[in-house]
Amino acid sequence: MFDAAEIGHRIGRKAYRAREPELRRALLDAQYRVLEEGRFPVVVLVNGVDGAGKGETVNLLNEWMDPRHVRTEAFGEAAEEDGDRPEMWRFWQVLPPKGHVGILFGSWYTDPILKRVMRHEKRSRFLRRLERIRHFERMLVAEGALILKFWFHLSRRAQRDRLRKLSADPDTRWRVGDDDWRHHEHYDEFVKVCEAALRETSTGEAPWHIVDGSDPAYRALTVGQVLLDAMLARLDGPAPSIAPSAPPPAPALDGRDLLGTLDHSHTLRRDRYAARLEHGQAHLNRLTRDRRFHERSMIVVFEGMDAAGKGSTIRRVTQAMDARFYRVVPIAAPTDEERAQPYLWRFWRHLPRRGHSVIFDRSWYGRVLVERVEGLCGEADWIRAYHEINEFEEQLAESGAILVKFWLAITPEEQLRRFHERESVPHKQFKITSEDWRNREKWPRYERAVADMVERTSTDIARWHLVSTENKLAGRVAVIERICEAVEAAL
Amino acid sequence: MFDAAEIGHRIGRKAYRAREPELRRALLDAQYRVLEEGRFPVVVLVNGVDGAGKGETVNLLNEWMDPRHVRTEAFGEAAEEDGDRPEMWRFWQVLPPKGHVGILFGSWYTDPILKRVMRHEKRSRFLRRLERIRHFERMLVAEGALILKFWFHLSRRAQRDRLRKLSADPDTRWRVGDDDWRHHEHYDEFVKVCEAALRETSTGEAPWHIVDGSDPAYRALTVGQVLLDAMLARLDGPAPSIAPSAPPPAPALDGRDLLGTLDHSHTLRRDRYAARLEHGQAHLNRLTRDRRFHERSMIVVFEGMDAAGKGSTIRRVTQAMDARFYRVVPIAAPTDEERAQPYLWRFWRHLPRRGHSVIFDRSWYGRVLVERVEGLCGEADWIRAYHEINEFEEQLAESGAILVKFWLAITPEEQLRRFHERESVPHKQFKITSEDWRNREKWPRYERAVADMVERTSTDIARWHLVSTENKLAGRVAVIERICEAVEAAL
Repeated sequence: MFDAAEIGHRIGRKAYRAREPELRRALLDAQYRVLEEGRFPVVVLVNGVDGAGKGETVNLLNEWMDPRHVRTEAFGEAAEEDGDRPEMWRFWQVLPPKGHVGILFGSWYTDPILKRVMRHEKRSRFLRRLERIRHFERMLVAEGALILKFWFHLSRRAQRDRLRKLSADPDTRWRVGDDDWRHHEHYDEFVKVCEAALRETSTGEAPWHIVDGSDPAYRALTVGQVLLDAMLARLDGPAPSIAPSAPPPAPALDGRDLLGTLDHSHTLRRDRYAARLEHGQAHLNRLTRDRRFHERSMIVVFEGMDAAGKGSTIRRVTQAMDARFYRVVPIAAPTDEERAQPYLWRFWRHLPRRGHSVIFDRSWYGRVLVERVEGLCGEADWIRAYHEINEFEEQLAESGAILVKFWLAITPEEQLRRFHERESVPHKQFKITSEDWRNREKWPRYERAVADMVERTSTDIARWHLVSTENKLAGRVAVIERICEAVEAAL
Repeated sequence: MFDAAEIGHRIGRKAYRAREPELRRALLDAQYRVLEEGRFPVVVLVNGVDGAGKGETVNLLNEWMDPRHVRTEAFGEAAEEDGDRPEMWRFWQVLPPKGHVGILFGSWYTDPILKRVMRHEKRSRFLRRLERIRHFERMLVAEGALILKFWFHLSRRAQRDRLRKLSADPDTRWRVGDDDWRHHEHYDEFVKVCEAALRETSTGEAPWHIVDGSDPAYRALTVGQVLLDAMLARLDGPAPSIAPSAPPPAPALDGRDLLGTLDHSHTLRRDRYAARLEHGQAHLNRLTRDRRFHERSMIVVFEGMDAAGKGSTIRRVTQAMDARFYRVVPIAAPTDEERAQPYLWRFWRHLPRRGHSVIFDRSWYGRVLVERVEGLCGEADWIRAYHEINEFEEQLAESGAILVKFWLAITPEEQLRRFHERESVPHKQFKITSEDWRNREKWPRYERAVADMVERTSTDIARWHLVSTENKLAGRVAVIERICEAVEAAL
């Protein structure tokens, strides 16, 4: 894989001087077009062998383009404190918004590669992380991102010569650290691991570009040209189409689904309710104070038809918790910063750190519910979302989060009753809008979306709890008891 | 100050039961009105003596209101890593946006008080921090925030009894830590420091409410009622008016200002330019690699009339730096998330951490330049901004940031020439819009705003550098040399 990058590619000084100004102007022009159109972000990953000119090239890109709209971030091995959230969290924080260029130095490849080279992680874990990266990049591309992955290569001998040369010059000695020499000793092992990483992640939608790093002029022009061509192709060509997606899920032939099997007849006397609620809340309170809970985080998701009682149920849950350690995040229309990012971005930004909980009042499932039903995203977008969401939740679970998901279910008749009640009680009128009535007309389509959602995203790591809130009291108690069970099982 | 809170205020169980439901509904209604109108944020500070029911009351507020729109954050003493940025940074990160309620548990008072009680900081430093807080709160209020500061008090004896009682019950024992008992031993000293803090910071715009914490019913109803009344007063009453501001600065009688004294006749031959630029960049590069520089951060601000060459100058600066450690932040119209916050918020969010640099292409000075001239904020708003900005920059300097501010100056004739040039060169056309022509007509008003700005914000900690870029080459070299001087002086 790296052989072609060891033949000593070179560009003469004269040829470089002849091409550089033109390339530079074209890059700047393309960058401004990307910015003005604001249709997609450009994500540039820079990885490779030490001493192969990664830093110099990144600086050159910043020089050639307008650095005001380029954000460069460097990543090394994951630090301890990063363990507070899923490993991809730190990358989500710096994804460039649409129209901007983000240069991720080291990127999400450095940590898995180094951990594997140093034998801190097993091969199976390594492959799993690469698989995750593949899915992540595919999602970014599907969300519109232009991803360019540059791998800077040097042969073992060229690396040694380069490190020696840098060390000899007082002006560049600072560039060479102990780490660099230690890595050099592991060169063969390092390259072997890298080759595996590149092979596993050189996909159709985000292939690696291997760059011979031995000649500064060659590597600079190469990277600049690849970047330019890619931007122009996206600017002038059609939007990328991810492989055609499967047809949308078909309803079961007998017309039945899990939601339809739900028993709405539960009732609960008010005195029994008070006792069970208090008991459940006390239990939840004790659990969240447990020492072991402080090592975890908790994410509770509430979805449900309008007027199913999400808000009042959430309040019964938070009553049992310490306000310093939880947050309720209501999901409404995205802000403009959120719209400039992949749809999962606005959930990543709210993920709790260790010892904390976040309760989502509506969630990332909006993608396969309201966005599907209202046509706010394309069919292929919500179809791919099931898998993306499962991937996301898997990462949450792996990072130690306790994830509990609720669908609060009511019958259409009960919804109608509650709508009328809201309209007649003055201090509840703000809760009912014409949109609620419009959504109600689409009940059957929502119901089908819910059935598909539950079928495809109720996984062993994050099962859906379908809870009838036809009787509000019974529903609230059930929710709290389910949360307790989930926390207990997790601890 | 605390005497009135030691007389054992009480509310009987029956009276509590009679008032609580009504208060609760009214609070919820008020909260929704605040949310719908989205005009101001509600910032609730909760501080006080250990064991006085702070946590319980905060939980109750979350129960009474809709926790989806309340964000509770707890703050203790500043941790080591907070030292990477100015001390107020962590509070800016969690300020509630307009329409929302933020409960800041511990808030910005805990750290100065504890540091003073433990004698880790001198009295002069303590008073200085209180002064900063006073300015900060005044700014929040001026920006529209409703601030409520609750101080929960307990007498020495009541505190001891309460800690004992909590320790005796297995269900509440977890609430009492070693810290609580240690603080109890320091009770007298603690209360003395607190009294000074409250006295210094009980201002007209943000007074303290001292709450007797001995009776749960009394303290809960008190806090709820104060909060309710304050929200209603803001909802139904006029917007708060900060004390009338001074009249706007008058121009000097002789019509001269610092800007007018600037010499625009410097020229620089291209070969001399190349040599000096290279020398300056090499110098800057060495400085930013200095070990001592890694202990600091750097913030460079560029302001200037349209076409004064901010962009091209910034590029000459960044060429000398490592892209992994700097960011260029271009300031354009605020996003909707930024509009829901005080105007300085969007600059706080971009502050560099230690070892990093941020270059602002336009900055917080927009408040006293474009916002003043275009009438985007009220007169009182930009008049108070000078002091707020000086305060802000003082905090930057104190946190170790090296702050360098440039006004790039050209003559109106030169601007006209550059505008025409931009119109005639294809790849520069995107740089010129009808807005630039409109701004040009306001040249005299901008000039006056600049003169006022320089006069009022060129301080000993952050002097303005007025640099003529009439000759671009001379201007660029001057900027880089000034940055080098500033960094050298700082190290």
